[in-house]
Amino acid sequence: MTTAWTRKDLLTIRELDRAEIELVLDTAKTFKDLLARPIKKATSLQGRTVVNLFVEPSTRTRTSFELAATRLDADVVSIDSASSSFRKGETLKDTGLVLEAMKADFIILRHSAAGAPQFLAERLKAHIVNAGDGAHEHPTQALLDTFTMRERLGEKRGWKGLHVVICGDILFSRVARSNVWALLKLGASVTLVGPTTLVPDIFGELGVKVAHDLDSVLPEADVIMLLRIQHERQQRSFFPSVGEYVSLFGLGMARFKKCKPGVLIMHPGPINRGVEIASELADCPNSTVLDQVQNGLAVRMAVLHLLGGGGPVE
Amino acid sequence: MTTAWTRKDLLTIRELDRAEIELVLDTAKTFKDLLARPIKKATSLQGRTVVNLFVEPSTRTRTSFELAATRLDADVVSIDSASSSFRKGETLKDTGLVLEAMKADFIILRHSAAGAPQFLAERLKAHIVNAGDGAHEHPTQALLDTFTMRERLGEKRGWKGLHVVICGDILFSRVARSNVWALLKLGASVTLVGPTTLVPDIFGELGVKVAHDLDSVLPEADVIMLLRIQHERQQRSFFPSVGEYVSLFGLGMARFKKCKPGVLIMHPGPINRGVEIASELADCPNSTVLDQVQNGLAVRMAVLHLLGGGGPVE
Amino acid sequence: MTTAWTRKDLLTIRELDRAEIELVLDTAKTFKDLLARPIKKATSLQGRTVVNLFVEPSTRTRTSFELAATRLDADVVSIDSASSSFRKGETLKDTGLVLEAMKADFIILRHSAAGAPQFLAERLKAHIVNAGDGAHEHPTQALLDTFTMRERLGEKRGWKGLHVVICGDILFSRVARSNVWALLKLGASVTLVGPTTLVPDIFGELGVKVAHDLDSVLPEADVIMLLRIQHERQQRSFFPSVGEYVSLFGLGMARFKKCKPGVLIMHPGPINRGVEIASELADCPNSTVLDQVQNGLAVRMAVLHLLGGGGPVE
Repeated sequence: MTTAWTRKDLLTIRELDRAEIELVLDTAKTFKDLLARPIKKATSLQGRTVVNLFVEPSTRTRTSFELAATRLDADVVSIDSASSSFRKGETLKDTGLVLEAMKADFIILRHSAAGAPQFLAERLKAHIVNAGDGAHEHPTQALLDTFTMRERLGEKRGWKGLHVVICGDILFSRVARSNVWALLKLGASVTLVGPTTLVPDIFGELGVKVAHDLDSVLPEADVIMLLRIQHERQQRSFFPSVGEYVSLFGLGMARFKKCKPGVLIMHPGPINRGVEIASELADCPNSTVLDQVQNGLAVRMAVLHLLGGGGPVE
Repeated sequence: MTTAWTRKDLLTIRELDRAEIELVLDTAKTFKDLLARPIKKATSLQGRTVVNLFVEPSTRTRTSFELAATRLDADVVSIDSASSSFRKGETLKDTGLVLEAMKADFIILRHSAAGAPQFLAERLKAHIVNAGDGAHEHPTQALLDTFTMRERLGEKRGWKGLHVVICGDILFSRVARSNVWALLKLGASVTLVGPTTLVPDIFGELGVKVAHDLDSVLPEADVIMLLRIQHERQQRSFFPSVGEYVSLFGLGMARFKKCKPGVLIMHPGPINRGVEIASELADCPNSTVLDQVQNGLAVRMAVLHLLGGGGPVE
Repeated sequence: MTTAWTRKDLLTIRELDRAEIELVLDTAKTFKDLLARPIKKATSLQGRTVVNLFVEPSTRTRTSFELAATRLDADVVSIDSASSSFRKGETLKDTGLVLEAMKADFIILRHSAAGAPQFLAERLKAHIVNAGDGAHEHPTQALLDTFTMRERLGEKRGWKGLHVVICGDILFSRVARSNVWALLKLGASVTLVGPTTLVPDIFGELGVKVAHDLDSVLPEADVIMLLRIQHERQQRSFFPSVGEYVSLFGLGMARFKKCKPGVLIMHPGPINRGVEIASELADCPNSTVLDQVQNGLAVRMAVLHLLGGGGPVE
């Protein structure tokens, strides 16, 4: 760990350099070890306040951030805007300023508008963590995903020559975008796969390969990351039917047999068993679905810890 | 206390033996004494995480479990699935595994399906507490009810020869089922009363008496437990009207005069004043409604404490 | 601080005397200093339970009370009745008794019915804090508003000869009522301004001036408090249109130029930019909008601290 963390906020993976990503992963490793102990507490955020502002609801991600902040001994308040009167007629900036006036030290923001976390970060002294902004980025997801790859494949293997296939609804996926940036910066190679409507060729300009035939890319893949079909973000139909999608892009047993034996099967969850992934594959030893959830906690603790000034763990 | 607690989960009263029930009641007594002090904290769950997963909403029971866990110094996260995106397209098993991956040590589950807690308990390492599953069981309610009887009637009286009348919507009542098991195991005798549509004679096979005329059983009762009419669980009408129900099965002053002077009037709450019970009886010295709520906290602390490994309180 | 706090509850400003109001403001000053430190904790409510019972929802006020109680080291449970099963068929008194049986030491109540907090206070041993009851009172808002005036204008200036204009929807405003009581008791003079439908002349009987022309009262004002239009409390239309309201009672740049240079512009939030107040004025140095939010935390800590028995703040 020769790099020091200098950023006030975690907004995107795109703006991080490789050393910063690796600093988060290394710090997360320390917290993962801590979480394995019976009393799972650090004190780096003692007396500080973390507000979860989820303008777009997500109980799963919110719970993960809540637990991460709690384990660092922060005071945590969660605001689900769906059922909230908080922003009634109030601008996002005013909501942010109000939370800061209430002494929020950290604001974890999920928002349907790309760029909302950056907008707040430029206007507030509080640390802003992007917990997903529209179809833009979801940086902690990419950090927990790369953490999981490194852990499962072994640190010695390194990123060089690692082939990661990301399959599905790329067009609307902030998870895909953040993972692309993280993997390219770390040195892996990425192939995006899906119907042309969801994976337009222009994605090639990011420095990744684009393919529309899952079967052809499976044999080379070290990691297959399956994305959830984001019905809520699709204004019109991008594929004829779910059955059609499953037959072309679902990972079933037949396709699994074409893969390398040690291939990692990843999914950000919640999984639709039988759609993106066959039920038995979600539970097989190659699956990292639960590792990802578990590592999410450690990664989010690391992010909050570093943003809050870092220092030794404990 | 010669019995040790050995179960990972609290799923039903049916599976407990008398010594286990009494161990919970004795432990709850210790916590009740603790709650009487100005600083109401024990530390037996320090650094452990309790998740309230209420797929069927109940603010009252959830609040009681939340406070119980907080008073044992646990970290508590509550998920109300009504307003939650947690289980969107996700199976109950996957939700449980995700919570366990997030390091949940305890999951308090309320679910509309009978058997859901058992299903989770068999698949997770986390301790599962059944906070009500369909019309099946609600074990902590029966424990707090029997705790309240023992406390109010005096430990010396014992259970032998104690006549408990449970009146109302037995067919749909998990509270009734759990209480029947608890009372029979402890050695009391139980009479179930209500319209034949809600108290079919087949209940007699459980080892209890069945009656359809409340007035005839009142004079012998030491305890009358009135159940809430569970409108939400009734698909069709089981009695002609509320007025009809009140006249036949509501406990009013006229009926109260037929009871033994020291009869306990119990109700799991929330009470419908003027329906199951006359307003003045809910507030009279024979009523245990608020004792039950208060004892619920002590009993839930005892359950979490025992499941978590027990040990001396403080 | 020669006065001691003797009340069990904080229900209204109307019942307080000047010394009590000043005791809260002085205590809040101590907590404001505490909040400026990196570790923002006191321990005066350690081991005690604060329940936020918001029968009428308000995430903003609830969050402020939650953080205030947390910073005093209380255990906090929040119940939003909008999404709650708590009071299903249950009277407010029964809900209060149940919370008290669960060992709630404080109940922070927001309710749509004027007098609801008093009703509970008379029936419970728990400390009741009125967090807004109908169009009646919102005492902590008036305390944070007067705290902000005293802080911004300087303690030496005193209240004598201070002219405060409160403008807008007075008829439905508990904020206005509580501020009127607080300001008159402290010795300031108050003018209520708005359309005759929202500011009937009968308000003059409270000891304030009533005006219907904002422009005429601006030059004398030391403080202008703008109220939010309470659409939800208006059963019928009290003014022709929002545009009409803005032109007559909105504070824009033209009106601002008629004011004293150091005039304070106050608003309880959330602000409707461009309606009650021009956007640039909300952010100008005369605006106290964010001071009010920040001081709200200190004032609520002071109130909970004093109700809980007070004692030295570390």
